Amino acid sequence: MPEHSRFSFDGLYSKHAPEGRPRGGAGRRGKYDFAVAYPDPKSIPIDGLVSGLQQALSEEGEDLAIYAHPQGYRPLREFVSGKLARERNIHVSADDIILGDGSGQPIHMFLEVLIDPGDVALTEDYVYAGTLGQLRRFGADVRGVECDEDGMLPDALESAIERAASQGKMPKLIYTIPTYQNPQGWTMTLERRQAMVDIANRHGVPILEDDCYVDLRLDGPESPTSIYSLDETGSTMYVASFSKIIAPGMRIGYGTGPAEVLDRALVAKSGGSVNMFASYAVHRYSTDNLDSHIEEINHVQRAKRDAMLSSLGENFGDRAEWSNPHGGLFVWLKMPDGSDITSIRDTVLDKYEVGYLSGVNFSPEGGSGQNYARLCFGFNQPDEIHEGIARLAEAFEAEGAF
Amino acid sequence: MPEHSRFSFDGLYSKHAPEGRPRGGAGRRGKYDFAVAYPDPKSIPIDGLVSGLQQALSEEGEDLAIYAHPQGYRPLREFVSGKLARERNIHVSADDIILGDGSGQPIHMFLEVLIDPGDVALTEDYVYAGTLGQLRRFGADVRGVECDEDGMLPDALESAIERAASQGKMPKLIYTIPTYQNPQGWTMTLERRQAMVDIANRHGVPILEDDCYVDLRLDGPESPTSIYSLDETGSTMYVASFSKIIAPGMRIGYGTGPAEVLDRALVAKSGGSVNMFASYAVHRYSTDNLDSHIEEINHVQRAKRDAMLSSLGENFGDRAEWSNPHGGLFVWLKMPDGSDITSIRDTVLDKYEVGYLSGVNFSPEGGSGQNYARLCFGFNQPDEIHEGIARLAEAFEAEGAF
Repeated sequence: MPEHSRFSFDGLYSKHAPEGRPRGGAGRRGKYDFAVAYPDPKSIPIDGLVSGLQQALSEEGEDLAIYAHPQGYRPLREFVSGKLARERNIHVSADDIILGDGSGQPIHMFLEVLIDPGDVALTEDYVYAGTLGQLRRFGADVRGVECDEDGMLPDALESAIERAASQGKMPKLIYTIPTYQNPQGWTMTLERRQAMVDIANRHGVPILEDDCYVDLRLDGPESPTSIYSLDETGSTMYVASFSKIIAPGMRIGYGTGPAEVLDRALVAKSGGSVNMFASYAVHRYSTDNLDSHIEEINHVQRAKRDAMLSSLGENFGDRAEWSNPHGGLFVWLKMPDGSDITSIRDTVLDKYEVGYLSGVNFSPEGGSGQNYARLCFGFNQPDEIHEGIARLAEAFEAEGAF
Repeated sequence: MPEHSRFSFDGLYSKHAPEGRPRGGAGRRGKYDFAVAYPDPKSIPIDGLVSGLQQALSEEGEDLAIYAHPQGYRPLREFVSGKLARERNIHVSADDIILGDGSGQPIHMFLEVLIDPGDVALTEDYVYAGTLGQLRRFGADVRGVECDEDGMLPDALESAIERAASQGKMPKLIYTIPTYQNPQGWTMTLERRQAMVDIANRHGVPILEDDCYVDLRLDGPESPTSIYSLDETGSTMYVASFSKIIAPGMRIGYGTGPAEVLDRALVAKSGGSVNMFASYAVHRYSTDNLDSHIEEINHVQRAKRDAMLSSLGENFGDRAEWSNPHGGLFVWLKMPDGSDITSIRDTVLDKYEVGYLSGVNFSPEGGSGQNYARLCFGFNQPDEIHEGIARLAEAFEAEGAF
């Protein structure tokens, strides 16, 4: 029998098909894993989630047979609606909330309905790598806007908009993480939030506000109110998640925004309703326990942040600079100008078992940040953090990064 | 203070943004709910899922803190790999399987990487409304191919391809549900499967095989082997799901296909890994119990199918025709030519509490099927099915459908 020739998909892919990436295995992880913003593994409320699930299943377990509403389990949307009203001054009904797989799916939905290849998207320089990846996957021309410790600089934002407009490419979107910014750690002041809204409104540019870390307050003042609540024109989309306050493995986040955008976003959503099994558990658990759980995990994480900051002081001294975050899950480390801690990342992981992400991962244009690293303190315990930071300094010395 | 004018998104939407649909509430459901292909609510293995979950959490619950691989929980992919090899003659490793939210998400991923607006997609006339909705959402020119009780007619398939090619629109895809077809209920013969593969290969058209019902064998011969296994060129994508054999609320399905398509599909996937909480439960439960559970639910569903067929005989007699499915979850009812059971659907639901979907929902071009209905027997118990079918006949009489 003749060999069948392989089928060729050349010319069959859609214009909006992303470039493929080899799938490969799971990424290697360091024993001292400062690379990813995990919550504390030992604080995951496993028993509470299971008993919440059991309670829900005893009450409505037969509904697992039903295809639930694509916006997700309504009681959980009602819980989110209440939480947003109480804590973020966001007043939307459960009808205006779409649950998704983490915050990544709502972000994906919003980008899909707004971004064509070549469209300009503005974001903080530096910012969350996951959203940068999604923006690039939709072909966006992603441009960073300079920030200081109070958030995006209004003048820099206005200039970036005007420059893009003068090129005939009025930005489609401003993406921001205003509270405990990832990776820089600062919180945008109220004045800056208002300035961003004013500038965005004046130029007709919508805002996508990512509030995934707002609950992770370790000390310092409460976060200013949400950008969403300051925007009286209805230009703002808002996403957040249970990933950092319960667990990423629950894969439940949410988004809200103007009705006409939500109508389209829901059609763009894939996979039907968010997982009901996990929604039951998160809903029943959260109703009674979420506030006290958040208090508890922040207590745990405060000790980890302090461990990281003190061991950075001991091991890096005045040879580097780093952020002093009042919340979130990471410290933003700046090595001397000219230092390259990007190319040695794999070596440090292999030889010293310490994982981190280079600043390049968070660079909107992908071209800077070689001397920066994001160090997450959420995963390891304090004594491991001390050991890991000491190893990191040893590695940086041995590999010539100082 | 002046009223702020509303922000306008006019002109901001991407070219590939779907049209919005109002979100609204959950659809009304009838007491006699023959509208949706639910599994038996009373057979959902709630205790087994919870104890499987507890076992997994005791072993690896801290991993809920981790962002899992976007292809999904590896042990569950390994289970799927084994199941496909044993039962469908599909030999792919866990690396070549992507878990998704139901089968809907893998279908979405494959369509996204293949379909541009205007592209021709061929499918059985009639076929699953969910995939038709997704094809339309990507702007496909969906064309139905005539079928008989053995599946798609090879001559009709070849003609449809040639006609499209002569219009300069070589089809991008053949979508098929070869076993216990939704909604028609037949199973494609081995000869027809081979013919489809030969025709598709000869014209260079990929196949998307949806095998969501294959486990639901009530009687009759085993299903012929998968189309995937007959295709030696690697043109076939394959999806299936745990929704019908465990529960839709678990939201776990899967897909496989040629490596280059999977590489792109994974980038197109939104939301990261499929839900880990549900994956743990489905994996641990399935490893020991899935085969016996499938046997048990098919025993339950056989009685329901028989109840539906016998009550159709009693109440519809020779005034209609219907399928006699050997598996799956639905009977395909054909009322006399000229009868319209589409426009009276809401009335029948309101006044008689009987739900069904009209054939129009399953029509690739959306223009035919007014005198057809899909009647699902999975949700109600046998005595309710008898009552519901009697009411349906009464409704059809009162509303002039006979």
